[in-house]
Parts: sequence; structure tokens; C-alpha cells
Amino acid sequence: MTTPTGLLPLRPELAGEEPYGAPQLDVPVLLNVNENPYPPSDDVVATIAADVAEAARSLNRYPDRDALGLRGDLAAYLRKESGVALRAEQVWAANGSNEVMLHLLQAFGGPGRTVVSFAPTYSMYPEYARDTHTRWVAGRRNEDFTLAPDHAREVIEREQPSVILLTSPNNPTGTALPLDVVEAVLDAATRVRVPGALGASAVVVVDEAYAEFRRSGTPSALELLDAHPHLAVSRTMSKAFGAAGMRLGYLAASERLVDALRVVRLPYHLSAITQAAARAALKHTDALMAQIGSLRAERDDLVTWLRAQGHTVADTDANFVLFGMFEDRHAVWQGLLERGVLIREVGPPGWLRVSVGTPDETARFKDALVETLKEN
Amino acid sequence: MTTPTGLLPLRPELAGEEPYGAPQLDVPVLLNVNENPYPPSDDVVATIAADVAEAARSLNRYPDRDALGLRGDLAAYLRKESGVALRAEQVWAANGSNEVMLHLLQAFGGPGRTVVSFAPTYSMYPEYARDTHTRWVAGRRNEDFTLAPDHAREVIEREQPSVILLTSPNNPTGTALPLDVVEAVLDAATRVRVPGALGASAVVVVDEAYAEFRRSGTPSALELLDAHPHLAVSRTMSKAFGAAGMRLGYLAASERLVDALRVVRLPYHLSAITQAAARAALKHTDALMAQIGSLRAERDDLVTWLRAQGHTVADTDANFVLFGMFEDRHAVWQGLLERGVLIREVGPPGWLRVSVGTPDETARFKDALVETLKEN
Repeated sequence: MTTPTGLLPLRPELAGEEPYGAPQLDVPVLLNVNENPYPPSDDVVATIAADVAEAARSLNRYPDRDALGLRGDLAAYLRKESGVALRAEQVWAANGSNEVMLHLLQAFGGPGRTVVSFAPTYSMYPEYARDTHTRWVAGRRNEDFTLAPDHAREVIEREQPSVILLTSPNNPTGTALPLDVVEAVLDAATRVRVPGALGASAVVVVDEAYAEFRRSGTPSALELLDAHPHLAVSRTMSKAFGAAGMRLGYLAASERLVDALRVVRLPYHLSAITQAAARAALKHTDALMAQIGSLRAERDDLVTWLRAQGHTVADTDANFVLFGMFEDRHAVWQGLLERGVLIREVGPPGWLRVSVGTPDETARFKDALVETLKEN
Repeated sequence: MTTPTGLLPLRPELAGEEPYGAPQLDVPVLLNVNENPYPPSDDVVATIAADVAEAARSLNRYPDRDALGLRGDLAAYLRKESGVALRAEQVWAANGSNEVMLHLLQAFGGPGRTVVSFAPTYSMYPEYARDTHTRWVAGRRNEDFTLAPDHAREVIEREQPSVILLTSPNNPTGTALPLDVVEAVLDAATRVRVPGALGASAVVVVDEAYAEFRRSGTPSALELLDAHPHLAVSRTMSKAFGAAGMRLGYLAASERLVDALRVVRLPYHLSAITQAAARAALKHTDALMAQIGSLRAERDDLVTWLRAQGHTVADTDANFVLFGMFEDRHAVWQGLLERGVLIREVGPPGWLRVSVGTPDETARFKDALVETLKEN
């Protein structure tokens, strides 16, 4: 027998890579990963426990592969949230919106194809591209983090992507895209010539993970679905529903687009327990939507306070605030951490991102920031 | 604005593909997908409900990304089940063993690389290869479904795969591989020159989804882990644990191999609820292992009965039996279905596969088979 060297055939592009993830530190005030600060109510916990117990009674059987019950509940929720009517077959669900993105790139991206997005934006996107062997190209947002339609058109024409990824509200900046910008991108997408799929439009994905926190009057790209079979709008239960631990992401699109994702999903990708827990949480939509209202108010107050303190603050429709500019942002981040408040050092140089917490957490953040800046 | 054509840029290799999945029919006796026929006991259901409720209390937070508690529990279980001592860091867990396989091929397969297996074997493997753009090559098993080391060596030398996928007990044949055959493959794997990873051995994956049902004296490839850093042994809670609805697959390997999978996993891939439910079920290991004993006895009785009826039966270490040979196997499958018994038309021509059910389900299968064959 030959002695194995212990070397493994890791793909060259993965060599030296670290597993992705925000630093997890044990600190009293966690405002670093845009979680909802409110744990589920006793009511929600009780419904989840009861419905999971019921699902567990037949746990020896494979789950419903198509999860149409859950997809129908999500469609009903979206109708209530944004007024857009959808059928269950137009909704797709997976273990977190990152699995939804993986399915999109497996179906429409891949070797020899390109995905385009516009930076600064969510730092996981390049990893989804890498994991699916899709070429990753980032255009740019304006200085105020809005997106210029002319620039978007130009990048799309130049790069001929099969997938275009917009983020609204954008992470880490909080910026929502007006619908006319999304429409300009949808239009440019129809003129792309995708390798191996002549006559097809590029797929436009609008990642609306934080959409429920948008200010009143800000529209959702869901309103554009009817006229655009090449549009997908992704959402998640992690943020508004306060269920980051549940890992339930979903999207709405044309039924044809959803059917393409069904081909690449792993069979039985959504467990019976996940389906039951998500449907249980959706039974409490009204209470959760009320809570979102208070988080939006808290967010707006925080923006006002930061501006009054003289900081630059990006307009935000999300449950977080990007603020600056600091010559040494790491020192500010560190000063907050030393005072028990963890925020995120992310985004363009000079900026920091803080999630909207409970009123008490926000107060502690404010105190810590004032103290830190006094010292520096 | 250009009007979208409605055509989507689906990858050419996916065009016309149907989503994978065994036909799901509403029939009294389901013996088609190798599920455990016993639903979880009231005790197991109660533990799952209580532990999931506890996890739900902090559902607004992201789950433990590394799931080391669960991985430690799985290591303890494997020690109890097979006598092999493992550290938590040597165990990897994901949403079903199909996600484990996806991670393996994302890390070690991919464009320009090859995965080798030996047919007849599990029909999902080519889809995992397709989804990761890995070239798929199938060698062959002997007529009695065993694997000849010389043939395996020859295929490995010729194809130079980066991943070699063995299945033991094999699906759909039930055949377990002796350790000397696995060792021959491990040895051949050290001589492969993988593109982009010179000096590395190919990774050998032994899929032991059905290992708990092996007959006494049949070893597990877990015993080979210590000496072989390029070996991964995958398992699942779907079968022996009666938890197909939970979607919890896992593997044991060297810590270095597991660390490579951590790079390609989606962040937070295992929900807090899945982690809690799996750990709850693992608390009941002893009761579940007793149940496996009775399923093994039931399986052996079924093999004896089928042989006494004059059928050819493949030796089986799994919770299913491949039997034949039928000139028109579809007619036999159909005759059983008309009598309320669903089995699987799968494997080489002439064979059928039946899962081991409860004693009552097995009796109904036997009656239906006798009646069907009388008619044909």
C-alpha cells in the first residue's frame, strides 16, 4: 500500500479560504448582523412547538418535496405585506435566502457565465458566484449609494451577464432602489445574449431581504413581477419575522422561473420540521408586522440622532444604519466593543454599520459612541 | 422598453430535465423509498417538541454556524454504534446526506474534474455531479453486485478522478463492501494525479446511509478512518433513526477534510431548529437501536421467504431487498400497486426493490406478490 500524503484535492480557488461569517463574540449588546432584536413571543414559540410536534409524528417519512402548503402561505403573506397577488407556484422556498441564491446561480449561472452586481453590496455574493463557478463582476453605485441606470446599462451591455443581482434595500448601505431603476435594468436584461440560451433574457434578481423595513411610500419590486417573467424577488424570514435561526428564505417570480429552480434543488431540501415551523410563524403575521412598525420608528429616530451628532448617515430603508465617516473606523468599532456593544466594520472605508436594536440597546449604543468619540 | 420574450437562460444541460424524485402515490402500504416504517415514539416526539421550543426562544438570532454540539453528539453516537472513537471536529453535518455530497463535490470536484462510482448504484449521484459541473463516470459492479478490486483500480487509473464514490450497503442492491475492497480503492486513490492539486490523493467517499442495518460481522468503513486522511464515510438520520423528514445527513473524516467542507458550506446552513431536533432524537439512541434490531430480523425473514418462493434475491445489509428476476417487472410492480402496495421499479432490468416495513406491511406485500404472480 502507498502511504497517503494527507494532501487533499481541494479546488485551487478554495486554497487558503476561510469559512465565511461575521465574527461571533460574546458581548451584551449585539448589533452586528442585522438580527431582529425581539425574540419570538410565547405565543409564537407555543405554535412552533405544537406544529413541529405534529410534524414529528410522521418524521419517518420524507417531507413534502414541493412544500406547496408553505409556498402558499408565503404567497398569502406577500399579498398582505405588499398588495401583490401571487400563486403558490410562483413562490420558491429554501434553507435561507443564500440557498435560494445558490439555486438561481445553479440554474442560470455556472461555468462560462457571468453574474453582475453593483458595489458596495452584500459581501456573500462573490462566494455564491465562486461556489457555482460563475464569473463575478461588480459595477458601482454612486457616492450616495444609489444606482445610475446609465451605468447599469453600460455594465450589462459590456459584460453580457446571465444573472443581474440588485439589492434593495442594499446591504450594508440601506439604500432602496426606485422602481424605474429596476425597470431600466429589466429592460437592459432583455438585450443580453446569454451563451447557450439565445433569445433568452438575463434573469434579474432583486434581493429584498430587508424590504419589510422600507419607509412608507417605498415600493417593492414585487409590483413588477406581472410584466417581467425574467424577474425574481427574494425575501427571507430571518429579519422581519425575527427568525434568523429558522433559515427560511424564499422568492417570488414567474412560475416558469420557479420551475427551473425545482430542477436544481436537492430532493427534499426543506425538512418537514422547517416547513412546519415556518408555517407556524406565518400564523402570527399580524403581530410580527406590528413589531416591524416599531423597529422602523426606532431606526428613523437613530438616523435623526446620528445626524444631530454631526455624523454622515446613508438614507436607510433597512433595519440597520450605515454611518461615518471616521478616519480610523476600526478604533471606533473597538471603542464600542470595549463598552459591550458589537457593531460591524463593513462597507466602504470610513463607514460603520449598526443594526437597529431594542430601545435599551440603542441607548447603550448611543452612550458608548459618545464616550468612544470623546476619548479618540 | 423591449418586451421580454419569456425565455429564461436555463443552462443547456438542464433543458428538459425534470425535478428528481420517486413517484409519490397515496397507497396504504408504502415500501418504495426505504423509509423506516416506525414513526417516532411519543417519547421522541415530546423531546423534539420541548427542545425545539427551547431553541425557538432565541430564533431571532442566527444559529450556531459550526453546530459543534450536534457534531459532538453524532460522534458519540458513531462510537456507540460502531466502536470507532471520533472527535466532534471530525464530523460534518448538513441538510440531508445529499447536501453532504454536494459539499464534497464543491470542495473536491467541479469543472475539469471527475467523480467515479460503480453501477448499479444510487440514481442521485449523477445529479450531484451535474449540479457541480463534475464529470461523471460509472465503472461496473460484478453480476452479483460485488466490486472487483482489479476493475476498480483499472477505472481509477484510467479516469484519474478527484472523488471516488463507493456505496456500502449499496442502493438499490443492498450489497456491503468488505474492508479489503475499500482499502484497495483507498490505495489506488493515492496514485491519482488530480488537476490543480498535485501530490494530493483522490478523496474516497463511502456512502453508508444504510450501515446500521448491516448484518452482524459486516464492518463499517469508519474503522479505516484513522489511517486514511482522504477517506470520508457518510451517514444519515433518515433511515436507522426513522427521521427522513428531518433531513440530517453527516459524515466522518479527518479534521482536514471536514475543514475543506466548511469553506464551501453556505453560512448558517443548519437551522437552530434542525440542530435542536436532531440532538433531541439522538437522546433516544438506545431505543432506536433496539428497533433497528427488529428491522434487521424482519429483513432476513423476508429474504428467506422470497428465496423459498423461488425468487433470486441479492444479499442485503440494508433495510430493503432487491429481488427478481421478472421478464416484465413493470407488470409485477403494477399488480402490487393495484393491491395497495407501492414498491420501486429500480435497478438492473428484471429486478424490483422492496423496503422492509412493519410485520403487517410485509405480510400484505407477500400476499400481494403471491396473488400478482398467480395472475400473470
